[in-house]
Amino acid sequence: MSTIDFDELRSRFHLPQGKVYLDGNSLGALPRYTEERLRELISKEWADELVSGWNTKEWIDLPLSVGDQIASIIGATSGTVVCCDSLSINLFKALTACLEVNEGRGLITLEDGQFPTDSYIADGLSQLLGADRCRTQAVDIAALTPDTLAESAVLLLSHVDYKSGALRDMGAITATAQSAGCLVIWDLAHSAGAIDMDLEASQVDFAVGCTYKFLNGGPGAPGFLYVAERHQEVQNPLPGWMGHARLFDFEAKYEAAPGIKRFLTGTQSVLALSAVSASLSVFEGLTMQDVRARSLALTGHFITRWEQSSVLQSHAALVTPIDDAQRGSQVSLALESAFPVSQALIADGVIVDFREPNIVRFGFSPLYNTFSDADQAIASLEAVLTSERYRLPQFQIRSTVT
Amino acid sequence: MSTIDFDELRSRFHLPQGKVYLDGNSLGALPRYTEERLRELISKEWADELVSGWNTKEWIDLPLSVGDQIASIIGATSGTVVCCDSLSINLFKALTACLEVNEGRGLITLEDGQFPTDSYIADGLSQLLGADRCRTQAVDIAALTPDTLAESAVLLLSHVDYKSGALRDMGAITATAQSAGCLVIWDLAHSAGAIDMDLEASQVDFAVGCTYKFLNGGPGAPGFLYVAERHQEVQNPLPGWMGHARLFDFEAKYEAAPGIKRFLTGTQSVLALSAVSASLSVFEGLTMQDVRARSLALTGHFITRWEQSSVLQSHAALVTPIDDAQRGSQVSLALESAFPVSQALIADGVIVDFREPNIVRFGFSPLYNTFSDADQAIASLEAVLTSERYRLPQFQIRSTVT
Repeated sequence: MSTIDFDELRSRFHLPQGKVYLDGNSLGALPRYTEERLRELISKEWADELVSGWNTKEWIDLPLSVGDQIASIIGATSGTVVCCDSLSINLFKALTACLEVNEGRGLITLEDGQFPTDSYIADGLSQLLGADRCRTQAVDIAALTPDTLAESAVLLLSHVDYKSGALRDMGAITATAQSAGCLVIWDLAHSAGAIDMDLEASQVDFAVGCTYKFLNGGPGAPGFLYVAERHQEVQNPLPGWMGHARLFDFEAKYEAAPGIKRFLTGTQSVLALSAVSASLSVFEGLTMQDVRARSLALTGHFITRWEQSSVLQSHAALVTPIDDAQRGSQVSLALESAFPVSQALIADGVIVDFREPNIVRFGFSPLYNTFSDADQAIASLEAVLTSERYRLPQFQIRSTVT
Repeated sequence: MSTIDFDELRSRFHLPQGKVYLDGNSLGALPRYTEERLRELISKEWADELVSGWNTKEWIDLPLSVGDQIASIIGATSGTVVCCDSLSINLFKALTACLEVNEGRGLITLEDGQFPTDSYIADGLSQLLGADRCRTQAVDIAALTPDTLAESAVLLLSHVDYKSGALRDMGAITATAQSAGCLVIWDLAHSAGAIDMDLEASQVDFAVGCTYKFLNGGPGAPGFLYVAERHQEVQNPLPGWMGHARLFDFEAKYEAAPGIKRFLTGTQSVLALSAVSASLSVFEGLTMQDVRARSLALTGHFITRWEQSSVLQSHAALVTPIDDAQRGSQVSLALESAFPVSQALIADGVIVDFREPNIVRFGFSPLYNTFSDADQAIASLEAVLTSERYRLPQFQIRSTVT
């Protein structure tokens, strides 16, 4: 049984008053310690230490030290994760690395309906290198067999699907791919910080992720890159000075640093990385098994409430798997008028989001969401649907970000 | 004559007490307004708006709106600059764009002794694409002629050299390159915010830069990319979802946004970009000609003091051009024992930096440095040299960052 006091854990976050926040799978809430730490960083360190801070405050090590903090959350060993750039940029590095490791194969296999940036980056690489060196194919992940991957250099897929919230079996799919001589890159954007996983035990080759969702690193916080130790000799296609073996020797010739450090490129934002570092400290002392159990309990509770509601049964189809082993940390409902319904919920103080074409996502962040949040969301959704107030004109207007 | 009140301007910055800060060419000082703005961003916007902030606080537009703020400082028009990623990543985008625009030419020409990340990225691109599609050559910039560039797709060079502080003639060199059918990429890392320039009038093709030096955006603040309007139809080799024409439609196929927006890749740090935005507001109401005049007056004053000092004349050679038209915003002195001398100066409260093999850099940030700063630096350097206290053991120890 979990020994975590979830009420106490919740109190460590600043949560918006009078709102039910179910969008931590899009942007995580602000840990109170992060607010405090950033104040210190800005008003003491940047202000007074200035350039000395790179040494005295170990800013220069942040991409690696934050990487190590992330490693402990995703079941990776120290020295295999670097926190830098964006998920998209890190994916570019991982994909070229796979083409190098798996020389002779030029095919990238990804999933039909993958989160867009993943397929855009893969297609962009194909366009840059030319089809003779790199092509992409999109497949139905449910029908994946070793045969499908016989020519693939790498299989790229999301650990948790951003629309349905379906969780994939990391160990089994990795083994299937590798049995066909294919490497794997897991996109952990929707799982890191909410799902227990073990990249080492699953023998994952590469992984990428972001820190602004369940890791609570702040809006647009940096991405991360995991490279299994056995692949750390590959080239970084974006070899900036921060990945050099001796960066302040300013040598004309690039010599890659040993280990994960070579995957760094340019100078990273100390503000952004310090926010991530502070936010990750909230995970200290927790086990990811306990965090995962809480997540399943919350989403399970929400699903039970959906099952018990005749209004919801008739209006909203469950898209997320009911089976615990296949469920991430969000529940997705397919609805007619999903966009205006999401806007009416937000107006009610239940913060959710909409995904094309007809999905409303209810994200549960195990560190701060509660069973009462689930109950309030269900009640609000019932009220929005029965009152039909989602038909009001103001709920039809699309902003840039949905 | 300048109408700027430089004392008032200086008072807008938090400067470390009891120190002479001459390293704003490495990390700019903290504007007081930025401190205030970040407090609001963190404790009000991230905390309470959470995911809604992407719309309500226009976070989603920051890469473009901050880009426009930078544009007005570097003589570019609105819609030609984007602030994102690092200088290194933006350089990768610019280099591949040049190979596309100048199809049929595969040679990248850069300067011998270029800032390392620039040549590493160019060499990395050559390695990725293969020598038949992309090669690099390093040349002596002083001996540059159209003949040297007859086969080059692009000439990449620094507007101000990071070691010597020499300023290049942007208009003349751009014209020389273009007369040979060669495009140009200017690296503005050491000039943006200190030197007046006009990218449009100089017909520059591409430019990259960073915001943590004279633009005071904070440690490791994001880079920027300028793309002349006539080149904005090229591909971004890192086509992430933020560069899509309709990013929240989550389409499977990438369709580049029109204009500069297509050069975006992944989600950007709102903390980092908001700091840049706040810091750039200090430039409002200033003309870059007045800023440049102040910079030249400060560095000129320092050089005069060096000329007047027999101690300095005998120990330290001036590396930076005396001619105003060829001088950036730093003065570099070549010294025996340059590293321990730089450490002894820092211990004296005069914050400078060291660059291999024998250079001490005195950076003057025109917005907040004073003539008295220059006098104190000269006095301190004389004292360090005559006392020989740079020989003390503690000044021989190298930290990671110099």
